Amino acid sequence: MRAVVRRGKTLVVDDMAVPAPGTGQVLVKTLACGICGSDLHALHHAEALADMARRSGGGGDVMDPSKDIVFGHEFCAEILEHGIGNARTLKAGTRVVSVPVLLGPTGAESVGYSNRVPGGFAENMLLSEAMLLEVPNGLSSTAAALTEPLAVGLHAVNLANLETAGVAVVIGCGPVGLAVIAALKARGFGPVLAADFSPKRRASAEAIGADIVVDPAATSPYSRWSDFGVPANAGERGMIAMMGGVPKNAVIFECVGVPGMVQKLIEGAPNSAQIIIVGVCMETDRFEPALAIVKHLDLRFAFAYTPDEYAQCLHYLAEGTVNADHFITGTVDLAGTAGAFETLAKPDAHIKIIVEPSR
Amino acid sequence: MRAVVRRGKTLVVDDMAVPAPGTGQVLVKTLACGICGSDLHALHHAEALADMARRSGGGGDVMDPSKDIVFGHEFCAEILEHGIGNARTLKAGTRVVSVPVLLGPTGAESVGYSNRVPGGFAENMLLSEAMLLEVPNGLSSTAAALTEPLAVGLHAVNLANLETAGVAVVIGCGPVGLAVIAALKARGFGPVLAADFSPKRRASAEAIGADIVVDPAATSPYSRWSDFGVPANAGERGMIAMMGGVPKNAVIFECVGVPGMVQKLIEGAPNSAQIIIVGVCMETDRFEPALAIVKHLDLRFAFAYTPDEYAQCLHYLAEGTVNADHFITGTVDLAGTAGAFETLAKPDAHIKIIVEPSR
Repeated sequence: MRAVVRRGKTLVVDDMAVPAPGTGQVLVKTLACGICGSDLHALHHAEALADMARRSGGGGDVMDPSKDIVFGHEFCAEILEHGIGNARTLKAGTRVVSVPVLLGPTGAESVGYSNRVPGGFAENMLLSEAMLLEVPNGLSSTAAALTEPLAVGLHAVNLANLETAGVAVVIGCGPVGLAVIAALKARGFGPVLAADFSPKRRASAEAIGADIVVDPAATSPYSRWSDFGVPANAGERGMIAMMGGVPKNAVIFECVGVPGMVQKLIEGAPNSAQIIIVGVCMETDRFEPALAIVKHLDLRFAFAYTPDEYAQCLHYLAEGTVNADHFITGTVDLAGTAGAFETLAKPDAHIKIIVEPSR
Repeated sequence: MRAVVRRGKTLVVDDMAVPAPGTGQVLVKTLACGICGSDLHALHHAEALADMARRSGGGGDVMDPSKDIVFGHEFCAEILEHGIGNARTLKAGTRVVSVPVLLGPTGAESVGYSNRVPGGFAENMLLSEAMLLEVPNGLSSTAAALTEPLAVGLHAVNLANLETAGVAVVIGCGPVGLAVIAALKARGFGPVLAADFSPKRRASAEAIGADIVVDPAATSPYSRWSDFGVPANAGERGMIAMMGGVPKNAVIFECVGVPGMVQKLIEGAPNSAQIIIVGVCMETDRFEPALAIVKHLDLRFAFAYTPDEYAQCLHYLAEGTVNADHFITGTVDLAGTAGAFETLAKPDAHIKIIVEPSR
């Protein structure tokens, strides 16, 4: 089969053996697979990612950047063949999505960051039968490929306490921030205030459902707490509590992922805010703990999602609660994938490019 | 009345007018008042603290370090006189404790960090009638003065989710860490693992109830997660969840408050740990957000306490659930207070010195 292979720090199209499904596995034909910011980063900085995975105590083997890797973890595919002994609940020909994990006799393998099994930028993959979710007829394959990135947004949103929130502020309207906005609106929450320096990204945020969109160069996203009934400080919160009320919180989602953002949010946040860190900053960062203490802040670091959240996002897309059209700005075949990686390196040329390996 | 006054960056004993209680206020005779680490810091770095208070959006006036300040916010006192129109539920002669806030016509004043009203290192103070809690006969005044620092510990503990915790690790066994240990044991939680380089502090931690005490120079406090049934990584947590179980968490309390500690805890923590930051680091600190993200950590910054937590701690002391004797290592009069500040600057000479202004 043909696949886009990371070899050294370049992407090449090459032939590979079609993998054979073991028990509990299926061989699929990949129909659509999105390119993620982590793929862009892993192309050039796979060592740093592997190092981080090792230091996090991650069980199982960490990918070896000196060996071939086929990226792609945001996919929709069609079942071709079952392994021996499978339940075969879903027949060959069924379109499916799945969390990007392959279960096998040696444990769990990451689909998309593995030396041993290919990710979605390949004509075929192996997936775990137990994790397959059937894609409803009315949902296109490219749209279904948004399940995974949307789940990242939903997981971040689910970390927040929305019951006591007066406003959700989303800092950064790239794909991660847009997924967060979509998940907030899918969960019925408002008001959502989104901030980005780029007019294009602000337009996307508005299309996806943000209630208020600001250019932080003109209007601080941290200046309107009283508009949303969120007390500015501990004294005001105490007064409300003393009179038997429940003071509202601010929830702030960090979706930029560069050094300095955490400190910016700590400076801008009101007392008792919940700060959800979704954007991955790969460098060492600086902050002032004393300010976070005096403001009694809650910093929650979001990573990945649960299988339930993943399934919920497929429903959101299938039911039209989240409109995939707002996210997908381009499609390419395998030959065009390397070029798509370069295009995506420019900050707001695209939101999400989908690779269609079977085209 | 006589008081210990911070004037410039020194402490002097001086005479002040006895303050007059307004409506809703009481004049008290101060019986006992503990010295806090924040007092030590405020002696030399009041400007930094005032600056932090301003930047946190704190309502009300921030103390002016160029003017006189009488410290002392961990006190027990005796009612002398009520303001006109008070309810007078507690009579003159009653011993009381109170959160260190004075309510008055111009708002809330901090007792112990104010230019306008004296704190507990003075023969007399004004307190708010509405906040007074009667001290039971069996509890000494010096012990009752521990209510406030114990409440700081209880508040930190209450931020943690103890139901899913397999172990609580307390890093640093100074007064803050010891208060956290005491609160954990008062709430019936175990096992508590405490770590400190100092043998004296480790002995105090053990006396106060830590189940396991380690010297981090010999044994890493972060090396024993499996002993407590806490999974090492996301994969293990996922396996347990998939089989219908609830994986246990680690809760780690940072009670040291110097640069580098947050990063140390991020490096040592297992996946999904809750890190409660209690020690106040007044300098800029550095950390790796990506490691916190990949480990899916929760960082909660603890500050102060609620009135309910304060009252709960008075109960703990009155009922002997927490033994004040383990904390109080010295008492001084007003004249000896400046010397006590110097003694406390040495890291493990003492745990808590109580000033007895009426001696």
